[in-house]
Amino acid sequence: MDDLFLKIIAGEIPSKKIYENDSVYAFEDINPKAPVHILVVHKERTESINDTDESKAYIYSDLFLAVRKIAQQLGIDESGYRTIINTGSDGGQEVFHLHVHLLAGKKLGSLV
Amino acid sequence: MDDLFLKIIAGEIPSKKIYENDSVYAFEDINPKAPVHILVVHKERTESINDTDESKAYIYSDLFLAVRKIAQQLGIDESGYRTIINTGSDGGQEVFHLHVHLLAGKKLGSLV
Repeated sequence: MDDLFLKIIAGEIPSKKIYENDSVYAFEDINPKAPVHILVVHKERTESINDTDESKAYIYSDLFLAVRKIAQQLGIDESGYRTIINTGSDGGQEVFHLHVHLLAGKKLGSLV
Repeated sequence: MDDLFLKIIAGEIPSKKIYENDSVYAFEDINPKAPVHILVVHKERTESINDTDESKAYIYSDLFLAVRKIAQQLGIDESGYRTIINTGSDGGQEVFHLHVHLLAGKKLGSLV
């Protein structure tokens, strides 16, 4: 399986780790679009939102509870942040392993 | 409580409903930023990601399983879509009732 994020989680590809727990691994995006740009990745591979159902609903809880903890850890919880999940071509999804972009560190403008 | 979304869910303020189940209400954004721009709102009010913990983790599952169903319903699941949650000032959060922006209908560009 050629999954970039699984290779990063396994340490086969280096990353700047920001946070990790049993279910989630988070690291700095190598092409940041804001002063803070972190990718929050579930350790269990699911391609996209389209591939989740009730049996995989815990993925969202795991990801966003991690986001909250990372925001506190980085001290951006009060100033604010944006979280984005891209799905498919129109959404701009580049890696087909469900992940959350966490952006912060400046006033983020319009949604698109 | 002056919560715009609770008033919309209660029908006190009109909205173009797209989807509803026991936990989630979704409707068209009145100032769309893309051909498809839907707000997916949990019926239970929580201000933001900062106010969620393990006891409220189901909010994320409810919201994103609804997103998946709406994407299928609208036929944008294959073409793709973007989902955004804004938190606080830097994130651009305007209504302090946790919600997901669902954007689609064109190639969505850069993240910010």
